[in-house]
Amino acid sequence: PEQILKELSQDIVEIITNHHSAIVSSRAFHPEDTIIKTKHTIIGGDHFVFMAGPDSIESPEHVLKMGQKVKSAGATILRGGAFKPRTSPYSFQGNGEVGLKAHRAAADTLGMDMVTEILDTRDVELVDFYTDIFQVGTRNMQNFALLKSLGQKRKPVILKRGMSATIDDLLNAAEYIAAGGNHQIMLMERGIRTYDNKYTRNTLDVSAIPVLQSMTHYPVIADASHAAGVAKFVSPLALAATAAGSQGLMTEIHDDPEHALVDGAQALTPAEFFQLAEKVRQIHQIVQ
Amino acid sequence: PEQILKELSQDIVEIITNHHSAIVSSRAFHPEDTIIKTKHTIIGGDHFVFMAGPDSIESPEHVLKMGQKVKSAGATILRGGAFKPRTSPYSFQGNGEVGLKAHRAAADTLGMDMVTEILDTRDVELVDFYTDIFQVGTRNMQNFALLKSLGQKRKPVILKRGMSATIDDLLNAAEYIAAGGNHQIMLMERGIRTYDNKYTRNTLDVSAIPVLQSMTHYPVIADASHAAGVAKFVSPLALAATAAGSQGLMTEIHDDPEHALVDGAQALTPAEFFQLAEKVRQIHQIVQ
Amino acid sequence: PEQILKELSQDIVEIITNHHSAIVSSRAFHPEDTIIKTKHTIIGGDHFVFMAGPDSIESPEHVLKMGQKVKSAGATILRGGAFKPRTSPYSFQGNGEVGLKAHRAAADTLGMDMVTEILDTRDVELVDFYTDIFQVGTRNMQNFALLKSLGQKRKPVILKRGMSATIDDLLNAAEYIAAGGNHQIMLMERGIRTYDNKYTRNTLDVSAIPVLQSMTHYPVIADASHAAGVAKFVSPLALAATAAGSQGLMTEIHDDPEHALVDGAQALTPAEFFQLAEKVRQIHQIVQ
Amino acid sequence: PEQILKELSQDIVEIITNHHSAIVSSRAFHPEDTIIKTKHTIIGGDHFVFMAGPDSIESPEHVLKMGQKVKSAGATILRGGAFKPRTSPYSFQGNGEVGLKAHRAAADTLGMDMVTEILDTRDVELVDFYTDIFQVGTRNMQNFALLKSLGQKRKPVILKRGMSATIDDLLNAAEYIAAGGNHQIMLMERGIRTYDNKYTRNTLDVSAIPVLQSMTHYPVIADASHAAGVAKFVSPLALAATAAGSQGLMTEIHDDPEHALVDGAQALTPAEFFQLAEKVRQIHQIVQ
Repeated sequence: PEQILKELSQDIVEIITNHHSAIVSSRAFHPEDTIIKTKHTIIGGDHFVFMAGPDSIESPEHVLKMGQKVKSAGATILRGGAFKPRTSPYSFQGNGEVGLKAHRAAADTLGMDMVTEILDTRDVELVDFYTDIFQVGTRNMQNFALLKSLGQKRKPVILKRGMSATIDDLLNAAEYIAAGGNHQIMLMERGIRTYDNKYTRNTLDVSAIPVLQSMTHYPVIADASHAAGVAKFVSPLALAATAAGSQGLMTEIHDDPEHALVDGAQALTPAEFFQLAEKVRQIHQIVQ
Repeated sequence: PEQILKELSQDIVEIITNHHSAIVSSRAFHPEDTIIKTKHTIIGGDHFVFMAGPDSIESPEHVLKMGQKVKSAGATILRGGAFKPRTSPYSFQGNGEVGLKAHRAAADTLGMDMVTEILDTRDVELVDFYTDIFQVGTRNMQNFALLKSLGQKRKPVILKRGMSATIDDLLNAAEYIAAGGNHQIMLMERGIRTYDNKYTRNTLDVSAIPVLQSMTHYPVIADASHAAGVAKFVSPLALAATAAGSQGLMTEIHDDPEHALVDGAQALTPAEFFQLAEKVRQIHQIVQ
Repeated sequence: PEQILKELSQDIVEIITNHHSAIVSSRAFHPEDTIIKTKHTIIGGDHFVFMAGPDSIESPEHVLKMGQKVKSAGATILRGGAFKPRTSPYSFQGNGEVGLKAHRAAADTLGMDMVTEILDTRDVELVDFYTDIFQVGTRNMQNFALLKSLGQKRKPVILKRGMSATIDDLLNAAEYIAAGGNHQIMLMERGIRTYDNKYTRNTLDVSAIPVLQSMTHYPVIADASHAAGVAKFVSPLALAATAAGSQGLMTEIHDDPEHALVDGAQALTPAEFFQLAEKVRQIHQIVQ
Repeated sequence: PEQILKELSQDIVEIITNHHSAIVSSRAFHPEDTIIKTKHTIIGGDHFVFMAGPDSIESPEHVLKMGQKVKSAGATILRGGAFKPRTSPYSFQGNGEVGLKAHRAAADTLGMDMVTEILDTRDVELVDFYTDIFQVGTRNMQNFALLKSLGQKRKPVILKRGMSATIDDLLNAAEYIAAGGNHQIMLMERGIRTYDNKYTRNTLDVSAIPVLQSMTHYPVIADASHAAGVAKFVSPLALAATAAGSQGLMTEIHDDPEHALVDGAQALTPAEFFQLAEKVRQIHQIVQ
């Protein structure tokens, strides 16, 4: 009877299984690690990168001050949002080009690379004018029009995993960028949506880090800030991601979390980030 | 000790709970049902709408033939995709404007309304030129730039629930459209992503139908085709959605499912759709 | 490269895929529907069964009164809990044997079958002395010691799906009972745990009904009460389950929900249940 | 309107929110860490414990040999199953009392503590006769009859998190044991069930470790073997759990994984475990 049963169910299984077809992105196609070099940073392989900064660009002075703090802790890439994808249309949507300018100025002053999120295909040229690295957020991981646009660029792209994206979905989304000829791609694990969301915002899927690294040659970075959603759990998650083999961390910081314009609850203070970075470096030494 | 514990955990809970702020979309603001009128269809309240057609527009002849079939079964809205959001960049991406033209021509010939998916803010004017109703797919439910663009239009928009969107996320996404002044919004339940995905592609969340109807005045429609992912389970799910109070159904059909360009496995044949529609009408009579 | 990739990943896929081995339970082994006959009820095939009653047995008078109500609405099986699996050890745990006696007396007086939950292998003989049908709850679906004990009995068993059980898990759990020689098994869909649990307690997986019916010959019943968790959504879910092909419904009722000892929030009043049952019969006529 | 909306939805929210009531288990009640002392091990606080051994007890010689290997790597507790909860009734169910005896003998010979799983309330005395520590598996986390039985014992209990148990569910299950007067409880994170299960068996929820430690005084241990499901991902997950603050690790090993009677795919070889343990100790030094 098992044979009969197997035949009966086989047609179903074949139809709904999504085999990933991320050819260019696969290790089978490109066995060695991809190394991405920007002006101030080397990403991939055994290198470990710290990207940090405020959630949103609040003012030229603030982003500069935050940049100084994270640089002193070892960060070489300054993160910050000028276009913010907010759940509600009535929440602060970011400072737009004014924010991009302030972000660029701070990065230049400090000798850091700049990374910022892109939300709209119509903004690609504008953001490209300012940034060193594009970031595609979790809500746009399958915004294929946007991915295709970035595939035409020759700048690194951080692709954040969608809230309920499978490993195959993420690899296929990366392939949309790669298919355009842009192979400077970083994949970012940032927590997935599960039934368990009372005490943390998302569930950091640390297993995605070694799984992805076994399947693709792109660097894999973790964002513990959005996974935790509350500051006091950011550090344990960041340490866990590092121990699992993450090749970098993106971390949100703020000197006055209670008055941050966006997501203050999950921001580390500069002092907390400094301590975290120290431990991260030690753990990376052990596991690399 | 419970009091102490409560106080300890309270700050966490408040921070990570996302209260929806879909003011304009809420029944508290607008108690009566929204009724949407297109040239050939009335949607909302006790009206029941059938939207059906092929997954993708394959040729002028094919969409016309499929349109005749679904019209004879009671459909007044002809669905079909010209821009297809495919998981892999190497899959067929749709016929673009050629598809839109064929779709428009078939709808006009048959006296039906046209609905098609929009993927990119840069295509809004192009799609607007052809279609009667915009569809935002599950992967773009939180593509806020696209939602804002459609908020500027004065044509109905079908907003499909994201693969792992909560009820609040969906209402907030609708609010992005409504905030622009476009109140002709339909919400579509199409199955959510759960751990249980071996025999059906997604899990149809029938409870979302009455829950949404208790919270918002917009019509709520179900798409059983994408929820099931296999043709033999489409009809039971469509009947279930109707019994739960759905105000319409979107269904994919194909006269030769094995050779459909996209998603043939989940397409009903015209004859199956005809039988389904008959039962759906009977159930709608009982529950309305 | 796809070939290489396929080979690389194949070993992983084979290892972690759980093929179900529910031989005796499968349609391939036993193509025709199993029909279960109790003193007052025929279950399976085209028959539709109503099981209803209070969540817990509160008193002899109360269970009798509730039984009269549900019998007048068409129920032939009287449900009620004497051993209650409560999340907290400090919640009311049921009235034990006193409850079983009152339940048995009410069923006999009314000419109905009795179904009640069994929690402990040590209680099998005790519960067997009173009940007509055993119920295994969601928390014990993989309590294999309990399933083996019930496999030694020759009375019907309702096996509720575990909170996050796959279809294969449920079939394999049923096989534990069947392997002991007891083939009078009913499977019950009662809602699964997903990320979406703000407005309903669980997500009723209506697709499980036709999926299970395509794979096994056992009757499939739905419990809309625990799926909804709030009374106002119980009826839409019960209607949906019926339209999806459910062969019966288990429903909790209470004449004074606010003062019910357990789960009052999800109890229908007798009048609501009467109206629901009427619509359910009409829908079952259409879809059977 | 928000006020009105809030009032409308409030009743729903209150009803379906499950507040945990794990009084005795909470830090508010017992702020300092619980320290558990067995003959050969101290568990809790800053102590780190290695529990390791074969999945099932295969023979007296084999468990002794495996015990020697794990002891040399630093383990003080020898794990092994005599009663195995298998998904299918036709899979090997463990060697029962013969296995318990062999396990006990190996532990005594080596000067280690013994931990084994208990599946049935009727086996409590039997297992108690042999073991030092009881283990309750994921499928029995809400087998409340079993938890109550163990609450009557005065030996340590490892309570594994249910496959889809929330943090509150786990704390409430622990409270069932504590309510009986047994406060020697260890909580074990072993991976939860999510939509993402193609490349690993479960999703290790590392955030559960610091979340639980903030709420309860019991030691929190991780089982990376069952979370990964494939050997090559066990070590990264074990390192991640340690970095997140886990107070111990349970790990399955086998000298010939391909011929293991149960779950060979996830077993580390003794050599792999030795290397892992060395890195784990280093990371624990950094984060404790």
